[in-house]
Amino acid sequence: MNKENRGELYLIPTPLGKNSSYSIPLELINKIDNLKYFIAESEKGLRRFIKNQTPKKSQENLKIKIINKSIKNIEYKNYLNPCKNGFDIGLLSDAGCPCIADPGSEIVNIAHENKIKVIPIIGPSSILLAMMSSGLNGQNFAFNGYLPVKINELEKKLNELEKKSLDNNQSQIFIETPYRNMRLFNTCINKLKTHTKLCVAIDINMPSENILTTTIAKWKNKKINFHKKPSVFIIQSELPI
Amino acid sequence: MNKENRGELYLIPTPLGKNSSYSIPLELINKIDNLKYFIAESEKGLRRFIKNQTPKKSQENLKIKIINKSIKNIEYKNYLNPCKNGFDIGLLSDAGCPCIADPGSEIVNIAHENKIKVIPIIGPSSILLAMMSSGLNGQNFAFNGYLPVKINELEKKLNELEKKSLDNNQSQIFIETPYRNMRLFNTCINKLKTHTKLCVAIDINMPSENILTTTIAKWKNKKINFHKKPSVFIIQSELPI
Repeated sequence: MNKENRGELYLIPTPLGKNSSYSIPLELINKIDNLKYFIAESEKGLRRFIKNQTPKKSQENLKIKIINKSIKNIEYKNYLNPCKNGFDIGLLSDAGCPCIADPGSEIVNIAHENKIKVIPIIGPSSILLAMMSSGLNGQNFAFNGYLPVKINELEKKLNELEKKSLDNNQSQIFIETPYRNMRLFNTCINKLKTHTKLCVAIDINMPSENILTTTIAKWKNKKINFHKKPSVFIIQSELPI
Repeated sequence: MNKENRGELYLIPTPLGKNSSYSIPLELINKIDNLKYFIAESEKGLRRFIKNQTPKKSQENLKIKIINKSIKNIEYKNYLNPCKNGFDIGLLSDAGCPCIADPGSEIVNIAHENKIKVIPIIGPSSILLAMMSSGLNGQNFAFNGYLPVKINELEKKLNELEKKSLDNNQSQIFIETPYRNMRLFNTCINKLKTHTKLCVAIDINMPSENILTTTIAKWKNKKINFHKKPSVFIIQSELPI
């Protein structure tokens, strides 16, 4: 319970994969050890995280609320009641930073509306780690989430992003469900201009991590298979030299 | 020296401020302890970081290259020679994640061109932490860097970003030199639509951290002073309900 008798909302990042080389900051371990209330993307994900990071913590009396698409936003209104009663809450998704390409921002929004302090904790974000490692423009970039699944819409979107990148000198980040990686990759190779640069950041923060950036022209001559491996894509379009 | 006799480029985040509550992941401390070669935004920043994080490490024989605007890109070409000779290099900026609103991507680009492995390390990014904590759309966002200084260009840019946010349902992130925070904040309050949401994330990861999101209408009634405090701004425009 904090001094104003109002709990705080901690945003807790979680490892990016099973064999992630994630080293949890000490302050995060201490924080989790003191929490009883959690809001999580899944109960299974939360319990696995606690078991791995703070194995001594008893899980028996945890109070867990779930955020996912099947729950109506109106129900979230009550999720922060423990804060109103002076208890801190931990918010986390199954992998990476909550609220970034993951659920959570609906809850944070309610926190702001109710003057509940929001405290973000440092941790892994595949999007940020990919952007850092791409060698592409990190002074101006956009994260576009998932692109359309239908092939003609996907092609159209990729061309739009390529044009946006050129017009605004802005790197364009996007992601895909891992089993469709190769389809997205091949569509990039076939539809983007040969001098456009593409970064593929595969298995970030895992032993198999592999981050590569080169032009579409050079990608055409490379053999690569990252089917089902979590990946981030970034393109940057430049005029041919 | 790694097994292929080629060094790797480590991207090392650094604390966001003097009193930052940053807890460095253990793997990062071990990594820094083993590095002799560094590329840094400033020698002072690098030496302070090493002194604070790994006080036992001798600084005497460190080999340091500097990246900043006064150095021509052509000189960077040689910066990664130690990697070619089998030595790892650490790349870092004065605060936060290298390459994200900070120098570094020029070097990472050269690494990719020379097939030198790039390894990003988890750490603090004020932009990511602000985005997580804003309660605004984290599924689609753009980082726009610094906005124009001239007031008429600044006003025009803010209106452009507000329109982009509405048209694409995309949160718009931007930053300012801290001594101009209040000028930017007041321009937002005066020029943006009353129902646009503005997040101001002040002193992220420091004891004085303060992250607030509300509508422009409600900001007009608040008194806040964050002159000279490092801050991140995010807007999200929505149609009035």
